[in-house]
Amino acid sequence: MEFQDVVRRRRMVRNFDSRPLPRDLVDRIVANGLRAPSAGFTQGWAFVVLEGAEETSRFWSATFASAEARAGFRWQGLFEAPLLIVALSHKDAYLDRYAEADKGWADRSETRWPVAYWDIDAGFASLLMVLTAVDAGLGALFFAVAEHDRFRAAFGVPGSYKPVGAVAVGYARPDEPSRSLQRGWKPSDAVVHRGRW
Amino acid sequence: MEFQDVVRRRRMVRNFDSRPLPRDLVDRIVANGLRAPSAGFTQGWAFVVLEGAEETSRFWSATFASAEARAGFRWQGLFEAPLLIVALSHKDAYLDRYAEADKGWADRSETRWPVAYWDIDAGFASLLMVLTAVDAGLGALFFAVAEHDRFRAAFGVPGSYKPVGAVAVGYARPDEPSRSLQRGWKPSDAVVHRGRW
Repeated sequence: MEFQDVVRRRRMVRNFDSRPLPRDLVDRIVANGLRAPSAGFTQGWAFVVLEGAEETSRFWSATFASAEARAGFRWQGLFEAPLLIVALSHKDAYLDRYAEADKGWADRSETRWPVAYWDIDAGFASLLMVLTAVDAGLGALFFAVAEHDRFRAAFGVPGSYKPVGAVAVGYARPDEPSRSLQRGWKPSDAVVHRGRW
Repeated sequence: MEFQDVVRRRRMVRNFDSRPLPRDLVDRIVANGLRAPSAGFTQGWAFVVLEGAEETSRFWSATFASAEARAGFRWQGLFEAPLLIVALSHKDAYLDRYAEADKGWADRSETRWPVAYWDIDAGFASLLMVLTAVDAGLGALFFAVAEHDRFRAAFGVPGSYKPVGAVAVGYARPDEPSRSLQRGWKPSDAVVHRGRW
């Protein structure tokens, strides 16, 4: 698909068919995520890839606080997504990388980082995965992972890795739009400042 | 350009021709940034768009601590970029948005936010701008803005807006590759965990 069409068609999808995805499509989505840019080329990220009902239902059980909360969730069709990719950031990798000789911040101080580029980079990877799904004619959702500790415990993820978000992917089914969309897109004039603020 | 080609060709460019960009190209790059997803559709971002030597040199003067530091910078051709877009995040917009009735986190507590999605979203917008430049056959660099206070003072940016990064865009010239690239891409096996960690 043309890049501009991918940008134009990109929307968050919250209702999926449970049909599994072809292997090469899953591989392409993951591979494109790994092509994201990263500060100092650190690539300080990790991905937990979950496929099929057994693996994905473990994710939903861990990240909803209770079965009641899950049963009351507005978009039940999200649970049908045959593919979930959890993007994790690893701050230590960046502090280590920038203490190397060519960077030289040997104190590993976090005050040097007004922006958590470890999280930004995991976000970059996630967006590339979402766009790759759109390019393949699939639907995708980027969403925040709740219950970080329970998620890590359920999947054996080390405590130093933070789930920045997850990408659900599958064949899209019609869904109820997010109420947030009623806000509409902000007009360009409201957010773009030319030359100065 | 095909989406997959954009992903494949994407690399950070640090040497530019100073030739100005056509108006419609600048507009498309900015417009695509504004199409980024955002938590709660908050769109809690802002962009300072700088074009031409007069505007961009004010940016470089503000964000290098000294003229000596600037003169010693390894990639002098970065200063030739005819377009700089600074992506700013606005945390307050997210705390406000999630205190609205449909979200209901009326306490505006930051402890609800283990990930700074205001920064993530500004990062999404930045990556879309970089990819749009690649799609148009241009070069682009996403980089961290140093000297946040001096940057804000130079451009009249309110203190509640944080420069998450800047995107430099222009016609690419051959550049010295970042030493970081010697690290190479991490093999997929090192960062992808299937089913569980």
